Amino acid sequence: MKSYRKELWFETTQRRQFVNITSHVEACLRESGINEGLVLVNAMHITASVFINDDEGGLHHDMEVWLEKLAPEKPYSQYQHNGYEDNGDAHLKRQIMGREVVVAITKGKLDFGPWEQIFYGEFDGMRKKRVLVKIIGE
Amino acid sequence: MKSYRKELWFETTQRRQFVNITSHVEACLRESGINEGLVLVNAMHITASVFINDDEGGLHHDMEVWLEKLAPEKPYSQYQHNGYEDNGDAHLKRQIMGREVVVAITKGKLDFGPWEQIFYGEFDGMRKKRVLVKIIGE
Amino acid sequence: MKSYRKELWFETTQRRQFVNITSHVEACLRESGINEGLVLVNAMHITASVFINDDEGGLHHDMEVWLEKLAPEKPYSQYQHNGYEDNGDAHLKRQIMGREVVVAITKGKLDFGPWEQIFYGEFDGMRKKRVLVKIIGE
Repeated sequence: MKSYRKELWFETTQRRQFVNITSHVEACLRESGINEGLVLVNAMHITASVFINDDEGGLHHDMEVWLEKLAPEKPYSQYQHNGYEDNGDAHLKRQIMGREVVVAITKGKLDFGPWEQIFYGEFDGMRKKRVLVKIIGE
Repeated sequence: MKSYRKELWFETTQRRQFVNITSHVEACLRESGINEGLVLVNAMHITASVFINDDEGGLHHDMEVWLEKLAPEKPYSQYQHNGYEDNGDAHLKRQIMGREVVVAITKGKLDFGPWEQIFYGEFDGMRKKRVLVKIIGE
Repeated sequence: MKSYRKELWFETTQRRQFVNITSHVEACLRESGINEGLVLVNAMHITASVFINDDEGGLHHDMEVWLEKLAPEKPYSQYQHNGYEDNGDAHLKRQIMGREVVVAITKGKLDFGPWEQIFYGEFDGMRKKRVLVKIIGE
């Protein structure tokens, strides 16, 4: 069994932003030399997500509006977590969107359906944060 | 390390439908000959889910009502994604219910608690769509 | 490839409660002797979650309030699942918070960012329930 590890660093320009990281994960996979196995891609921070969905701007807009409805950023005072911080909403949004994805590796490729793309979902950005890529297989 | 891959195809009769796929995944596991490892089961489409919960009709009704409350299908105009499509809600429902499950394999069986069952959750059905089963182990 | 399996048992004192189980998972990892691989940690019951977030009391209070807003416990009659049971809400809360986490193992440690902690999320407690820890690797 082989294993591979890499950290990807991101600093978004907005508080909330979705970044397509599929090509970064594909580069990791090539570097690993692993042909059959599983890749785990997870946010290393608890106010961010990694998720798989469509790379379509209208949908990303819809997600932003929807997440703000389910777990609004403001007023900050609605969250007890916001004593020293203002990111209570980001911890909740990340639960909806998920921490991680696990993707099959088959014949050296991400084993994806036609529209699957991997996104870093930032909910408390404008600072450096990390994603972990861990691959195991042969 | 051994690996195994299979696609399961589904065409639901309704736009939204839950299908118990546990026996399909168990058949894959037997075919794989793997006794210890992990199985990844994921929707290959971004308007569908794979999730684990109870096989109880009342609960599935509750989930349908609940998901329609959190991310209603209509009016279609509420989602920017719905320029050429009408499935904006399906992309959101799938985020709540999740893309994938990872299940332990122990002594050649799905290592489940008493009520765990694997479901394909369709949110934009009535057409052929796929689930991926990938098993790694020994 | 090595594999390791352990069940962790919990009996919470409240219907809903979050328990930090990180040290339990770390003990499993030491016992396994596995240095590189993946650990799956999942609730074996369908009214409980395993998730990763911050170990901060204010946030846990916010999560409780938020989950009660998204999927209220009462009135029990709002859920068809509640014919013989009263835990319809718990099945829904568990979908938001997730069944499982998969964590990378690197150099014999949980490969975590600075604030990541693993929680057992109980939504229908005050009885004995289990979490499964499965580790594969070398």
